[in-house]
Amino acid sequence: MSEDKKTIIVFSGDLDKAMAAMIIARSAAAMGNEVTLFFTFWGLNLLRKPEPVSVKKNILEAMFGWMMPRGPQKAKLSQLNMGGLGTAMMQYVMKTKNVPTLAEMIAEAQQFGVTFIACTMSMDVMGIHQEELIDGIELGGVATYLGAADDANVNLFI
Amino acid sequence: MSEDKKTIIVFSGDLDKAMAAMIIARSAAAMGNEVTLFFTFWGLNLLRKPEPVSVKKNILEAMFGWMMPRGPQKAKLSQLNMGGLGTAMMQYVMKTKNVPTLAEMIAEAQQFGVTFIACTMSMDVMGIHQEELIDGIELGGVATYLGAADDANVNLFI
Amino acid sequence: MSEDKKTIIVFSGDLDKAMAAMIIARSAAAMGNEVTLFFTFWGLNLLRKPEPVSVKKNILEAMFGWMMPRGPQKAKLSQLNMGGLGTAMMQYVMKTKNVPTLAEMIAEAQQFGVTFIACTMSMDVMGIHQEELIDGIELGGVATYLGAADDANVNLFI
Repeated sequence: MSEDKKTIIVFSGDLDKAMAAMIIARSAAAMGNEVTLFFTFWGLNLLRKPEPVSVKKNILEAMFGWMMPRGPQKAKLSQLNMGGLGTAMMQYVMKTKNVPTLAEMIAEAQQFGVTFIACTMSMDVMGIHQEELIDGIELGGVATYLGAADDANVNLFI
Repeated sequence: MSEDKKTIIVFSGDLDKAMAAMIIARSAAAMGNEVTLFFTFWGLNLLRKPEPVSVKKNILEAMFGWMMPRGPQKAKLSQLNMGGLGTAMMQYVMKTKNVPTLAEMIAEAQQFGVTFIACTMSMDVMGIHQEELIDGIELGGVATYLGAADDANVNLFI
Repeated sequence: MSEDKKTIIVFSGDLDKAMAAMIIARSAAAMGNEVTLFFTFWGLNLLRKPEPVSVKKNILEAMFGWMMPRGPQKAKLSQLNMGGLGTAMMQYVMKTKNVPTLAEMIAEAQQFGVTFIACTMSMDVMGIHQEELIDGIELGGVATYLGAADDANVNLFI
């Protein structure tokens, strides 16, 4: 175990939970930690490019892809979303307080050297192809996660 | 602390979160870890037998028992459930991709030697009796959990 | 790393998740652990005084303050809330079983020496002032959290 490694499973695709994950990851990396984020289930949607990508999907994969949000700009609050009003309010307040957007937080975390891993099993089940994800994402399975977690002294599930 | 112990508090009874917990638990156990799952609150419902069990309950306990899902077959997605349609879609896709069902994942985790502990305080509050739970479940309180977590190098709350 | 330190990020303001956090914190403290709770996002609402406090807010801060629950008495179940009926049922059952209320659990955790930290960034974004929080709360940022987590052997995100 090393005191300078951290892992977070980013299971949620909610705006608020994703921000919490990114703030912890970015800060830990800035403090010299090796940080690994493992994106699975709804969290995968945070890594999707905002524009549609032409890939071959079966009908169910296409439906999942259409129903799920593409990228951090589409993420909603887990609470108080109120048909998007609460999310827009939160984003407006963050802007007035000079808090970076979720998309900016993700870019900053990548710049700070945080490792982003997309869960291959979730990608398979949800029919998401690597071409649909932003650049700089590694692919991995649960064994990859467990290997990173074994070496870390803080492991969170968000 | 040992590098080969892991604990997960399974608080959620949602299909997606329960699958995440089971996939991590099963994989960690298959890699030689001692894994302890502590089922509390809604997570307890995952351990209920699918058929009703005749036990003496007061009216509120009976109501809770009736309102809460009995077993992994009744678990719903935390998002995109859409009145059951999203959950059915996910289960269908998993079947076509040869991903085990949640019930199969639970059985496999037990076969791999994962320790399943049901939280006695939650059982008491929700009026769930041990006879209503599947076989192979130990009972324990928060002190049992903390003892296991103290010895583990990965501790998650799902 | 010390075997007698624990941290929990209390992100959720839901009654059930907050109870889980408090039960773990109180028990760990009673067993001799140094426990740090870091309240962020919706979790902050658990620390608000139940009565309104007169502080200067802009219109959006006032709206957030009005929409979000003030204190543990207003916390709702994350599931089965059913317009408050499920939450009331749960609270009634807890009372009949002599389980402390969430407010009592918070007070007990403070008496056991659990450290309560309110996330300054969340306070800023949500427009919550220190005067609106109950007594005995320290203020801190993500670096404070990471410092505590580095020293702990159990770190949870709830």
